[in-house]
Amino acid sequence: MTSLPTFADVQAAARRLEGVTLHSPLLENARVNAMLGGRLFIKAECLQRTGSFKLRGAYNFLASMSEADRRKGVVGWSSGNHAQGLAEAARLLGVKATIVMPADAPALKVANTRASGAEIVLYDRVKDSREAIGLGIAQKTGATVVPPYDHAWILTGQGTAGLEIVEQAKALGATLDAVAAPCSGGGLSTGIALAIKGLSPATSVHAGEPAGFDDLARSLKSGKKEKNDKLTGSICDALLAPTPGDVTFALARTLLGPGLVVTDDEVLDAMETAFREFKIVVEPGGAVALAAALTGKLPVRGRTVAVVCSGGNVDHATFVRALARRA
Amino acid sequence: MTSLPTFADVQAAARRLEGVTLHSPLLENARVNAMLGGRLFIKAECLQRTGSFKLRGAYNFLASMSEADRRKGVVGWSSGNHAQGLAEAARLLGVKATIVMPADAPALKVANTRASGAEIVLYDRVKDSREAIGLGIAQKTGATVVPPYDHAWILTGQGTAGLEIVEQAKALGATLDAVAAPCSGGGLSTGIALAIKGLSPATSVHAGEPAGFDDLARSLKSGKKEKNDKLTGSICDALLAPTPGDVTFALARTLLGPGLVVTDDEVLDAMETAFREFKIVVEPGGAVALAAALTGKLPVRGRTVAVVCSGGNVDHATFVRALARRA
Repeated sequence: MTSLPTFADVQAAARRLEGVTLHSPLLENARVNAMLGGRLFIKAECLQRTGSFKLRGAYNFLASMSEADRRKGVVGWSSGNHAQGLAEAARLLGVKATIVMPADAPALKVANTRASGAEIVLYDRVKDSREAIGLGIAQKTGATVVPPYDHAWILTGQGTAGLEIVEQAKALGATLDAVAAPCSGGGLSTGIALAIKGLSPATSVHAGEPAGFDDLARSLKSGKKEKNDKLTGSICDALLAPTPGDVTFALARTLLGPGLVVTDDEVLDAMETAFREFKIVVEPGGAVALAAALTGKLPVRGRTVAVVCSGGNVDHATFVRALARRA
Repeated sequence: MTSLPTFADVQAAARRLEGVTLHSPLLENARVNAMLGGRLFIKAECLQRTGSFKLRGAYNFLASMSEADRRKGVVGWSSGNHAQGLAEAARLLGVKATIVMPADAPALKVANTRASGAEIVLYDRVKDSREAIGLGIAQKTGATVVPPYDHAWILTGQGTAGLEIVEQAKALGATLDAVAAPCSGGGLSTGIALAIKGLSPATSVHAGEPAGFDDLARSLKSGKKEKNDKLTGSICDALLAPTPGDVTFALARTLLGPGLVVTDDEVLDAMETAFREFKIVVEPGGAVALAAALTGKLPVRGRTVAVVCSGGNVDHATFVRALARRA
């Protein structure tokens, strides 16, 4: 394996993203703090351009490619948010993008990806291999594969959100005891861990996953890469990667604390709280770390904790279902 | 009349609010820009502490009072957002607050105001005079009345959002052709107009109102303060003030361009777009300026325009109704 990315790589990514990505706000709510008996911040990456943090990694990847490679285009596969981030990064940099998306991805995510000018290839999440389809396109066209998480350029791009969290908390007079982020393949959680450990070594960093798709939590316990039994079946459509990446797991082992696992109902409750108290729209997969904080699985009492709400690309029906959790 | 507040007063208010209020983000969306053929920014004040811009004016008012007056407490009346802002400002500064609220205000706004520790007095919006009730309490207790809009300390506090809009747009390389904000009594629209005219004199500033409650738009046309025929009947519960304030109208006459008037259906559509594209929760009254931009009443084509989404304190049922506008 080549050497793992470092804190300096996250700082370099932040320079590439300056003026491109939003410094999303770090939100706080007096009522929620009182309820939890501590201080909870939300890093609202659902407000990021394209509706999720994914633009950070995708843009950093494309901006790091050679000019010659960029001319041959890029190809990626994604349940939706990486697709939108990659398509928009390609549009901003004038690069042709082809995106392989699951046929059961939320209609909104497919439509939005197409709107950025990318070509869409749909596949069956259970029967087909998205990797095989994507690699086939790359071989035929010379396009560069932009992986959703398991690459230094991707995860250091995502990690720029971690730099902002520490700086924004500091401006509010806060020192963070813990930070948590949603996790599918581990790009966001390990990227922000690199950033946070670089600026604030005593802060623990945790990855949140949906119950039944807690491959990283189990891998951190066993010390080797574990796989999920199922490929579908959680409301968190963005968090269904079957196993941690090689690069992300190597980082996770040294940087992350114990994993946080939440149920679909806890996720829906967190979406409702995000609506009612923080006035943000969070998709199910984007709400797992918040759900961990609200349920006490990530303790907030007597502490200062930040969670990333990583995306807001949710269908109307699912959002209405979350609101119905509280009449 | 005493002299009208100036740009320098808004700058002084910004110094008082530093570290207290959130610099809410200025959001932009590539798809919405493409649809409108211009550049549209949303100043997301729904993300402000207490869920609306109202904390700005209330905190600035209380911070400007004498220590002796603060010890005697404050009293205010409000359909909800000023109530929450005032109650929270009072909590932050350790001042006793009594709030007179309409009995038909959204349950959420009443509950949240109470949660900040304020005492609540309910009144009938049609039969009672909230002014009379509030003044009675002030007379009995020596508390200072904190008016919802018609006071220099209030409107210059609200105006700090305008300073941020111009600075944030500049950081994105944009010069604003027009800015619009929701208007009830005119505190927000005239406050940001003071700020924006001070930093960018060529930018036009407009107040948005719901159809049937367009007292300011008609007052700007006739040159004298006009009154609304009705006191209830719009989905925009935050924008039902019967007539412009004296201070706010004096400022509006010299600072504001023509008023923008939108229907309840246009407001619901704007709330749905804010959900789908910007991932923010906007209440009906908070969405009127956005509605004006999306419908072309405030032209965006070939221009750069910012609108304030001023609050996010919306009941679940009303939000679901907005989402239902687009299946």
